[in-house]
Amino acid sequence: MTVADRVRGGEQVAAARLMRDLDDRVPAAIETLRELWPHTGGAYVVGMTGSPGAGKSTLCDSLIGAYRARGLRVGVVAVDPSSPFSGGAILGDRIRMQRHATDAGVFIRSLATRGHLGGLSRSTGDVVAVLDAMGYERILIETVGVGQDEVEVASLAHISVVITVPGLGDDVQALKAGTLEIADILVVNKVDREGADRAVHDLESMLSLRPHVTPAPVLKTVALQGTGVAALVEAIESRREAALGADGEVRVRRRSRAQLLEILRDRLAVEVERRLAPTGGLDALAAQIAARRMDPYAAADAALRALLPGGRPA
Amino acid sequence: MTVADRVRGGEQVAAARLMRDLDDRVPAAIETLRELWPHTGGAYVVGMTGSPGAGKSTLCDSLIGAYRARGLRVGVVAVDPSSPFSGGAILGDRIRMQRHATDAGVFIRSLATRGHLGGLSRSTGDVVAVLDAMGYERILIETVGVGQDEVEVASLAHISVVITVPGLGDDVQALKAGTLEIADILVVNKVDREGADRAVHDLESMLSLRPHVTPAPVLKTVALQGTGVAALVEAIESRREAALGADGEVRVRRRSRAQLLEILRDRLAVEVERRLAPTGGLDALAAQIAARRMDPYAAADAALRALLPGGRPA
Repeated sequence: MTVADRVRGGEQVAAARLMRDLDDRVPAAIETLRELWPHTGGAYVVGMTGSPGAGKSTLCDSLIGAYRARGLRVGVVAVDPSSPFSGGAILGDRIRMQRHATDAGVFIRSLATRGHLGGLSRSTGDVVAVLDAMGYERILIETVGVGQDEVEVASLAHISVVITVPGLGDDVQALKAGTLEIADILVVNKVDREGADRAVHDLESMLSLRPHVTPAPVLKTVALQGTGVAALVEAIESRREAALGADGEVRVRRRSRAQLLEILRDRLAVEVERRLAPTGGLDALAAQIAARRMDPYAAADAALRALLPGGRPA
Repeated sequence: MTVADRVRGGEQVAAARLMRDLDDRVPAAIETLRELWPHTGGAYVVGMTGSPGAGKSTLCDSLIGAYRARGLRVGVVAVDPSSPFSGGAILGDRIRMQRHATDAGVFIRSLATRGHLGGLSRSTGDVVAVLDAMGYERILIETVGVGQDEVEVASLAHISVVITVPGLGDDVQALKAGTLEIADILVVNKVDREGADRAVHDLESMLSLRPHVTPAPVLKTVALQGTGVAALVEAIESRREAALGADGEVRVRRRSRAQLLEILRDRLAVEVERRLAPTGGLDALAAQIAARRMDPYAAADAALRALLPGGRPA
C-alpha cells in the first residue's frame, strides 16, 4: 500500500507525516503529492480572515460543529499565529478546541507564518491538496489577512469570509484598504458589543460604493453564543455550487498560477545557492552589499549570470 | 546634472519619480540606484510596527515633529494600508498629517501592500535606499507587522518599535506569537484606557521569560496628547550608535541577503515568462494545473527545464 493510498484512505498519521515532509521538500513526498493530484478538486475551500481578537477561531470552531452535524468531514489549516489551532491562543480557547481533537472527521493543521522566504502559500497549497485528496468535504483556512502573503493564502480558497468586530474604528478603514475586496461574505462578530450597528452600517455603505459588483452580505454573529452561525453556514453553502462551477474557473486558474510561481521560486532559490556555492553563495554577495562594495542589483546580476551562463536576460 | 545628482541634492520631485520608476523596474532607474548606493548607509532606519488602530501613525507623526525640532530630516515609508500616510485613514488623521506636507525636511512615501508577488520588501528596500542617499537622517518604516513579508520589511530597519494598545487581550497573544521577537522597544499606546497596567505587566512578564536576552523596554504613551513621546525618542536615539555600529553588522547582512533574494526572484520570474512565452507562458501551465491534467510540481519542472536547458537540478 503506497503512502498515497494510505492518505486517500484517510490515515491521519500518514497525512501528517506527508505534510511535514512536503514542508521539508522531501522528494518522495512530492512524488506522493503528484499521485494525489488527480484526486483533488472535490473539497469546498473556505477562507476565514480577520484580525487577531476578531473571533475567527471561535467561528471556525462553530463551523466545524455545524458541518459535523451534517455529517461532513472538515479540514482546517490555521495560518494565524494567534489561533488556538496553531497553539498560540489563551488557555480557554485551546480547551474549547480540544473537543475536535478526538474526532476522526476533523483534521487540523497549523502552519508557521515565518518559515523560508515566501513559502507560506506554497505550504498552504500543499496542505489543502492533501486534505482535499483525503476526502475532506470542507476545508477552512484561517488567516490574519493583512500582509501580502496572507492575501495570496486567501486566494487558495473558493470563498472568503472576512470577520471584523465593532468598536475598532480604524479597523473598518483597514478593511477598506485591504481585505474588503477579497470578501465574499462579511461577518461582524461580537455584535453584543457597543457600536455594532454602526460597524454594520459602515461596512454596508462602503460596499455599496463599488460599482458593478453585487455587494457581499454583512452578517452579524456572537460566535461564543452561537448566534448567527446557522445563517453564516447557510451563506457559505449557498455559494458552493457557483464557487466550484464555472464561476470559480478564473479563481482556480489564478490560484494555480500563484501555486506554480511559489514552487518555482523555491526551486530557483535552491538552484542559485547551489551554483553560487563555489564562491560562497548568496551570503558572500550579501556581505559585499552590506559593505557597500556592490549594490543589490549588481549582486543579483552576478547571481543570474551564475545561474544562466551565456544567457543573461536583456 | 544626472538624476542621481538631483536626488542627492534633495530634489523631491526627482526622487518621487525615481521611486516610481524603480517600482516599474525601469532600467535607467536601476542604474541611478546603483550610482546612489555608495552614498547610502548614513540614515538611522526605525521600524514602527503595530496593528491597525494601535496609533502608529499618530506616534510617527509625533516622532517626525520631535526630529524636526532637533533639525533632523525625516523620511517615512508607509506600508500599512490603513495608515493616513498611505491615504487610507479617516479624515481627522489625514488632516493632522498635512502639516508635514509642506515641510521640505520631511518626505513621505506610501507603498501598496499588494503588488506583484513578494515584491513588497524589494520596493521598500529601494525607497529606503533613495531616502538614505538623499540625506534623510531618520527614516521611519510604518508596517502592520503580522504577515511574513511584513516581518521582512521590518528587517530593513535598524531598530524595531512595536506598538500595542491595552484591552485587546488576544492581541498580546498575537504579539507573543509574532512580532514580539523583533521588538527592540515596546510601546503600549493609549495608556489612558482601561487595562493599561495589565497590558504593560503582561508584556513585561512575557519578555522576562526569554533567557539570555536583555528584555526590550516597555514604554507607555498617549500619542494623541504627546505623553511619553520624549521618552520614546530618547529610547530610540540611545540605541542608534549600537544599531549602526558593529552590533548592527549581522542585521545589515541579513537585510542585504533578503534584498538580493527579492530582486533575484523578480528577475527570474520575468525570465521564466520570457522563455515560456512561445508555449503560452505560466498561464498555460496554470490552466493545465487547474484542469488537474498536471500537478503544480510537474508544471514547475517544465518551467525550470525551459529556463535551464540541459541543466535541471538533481
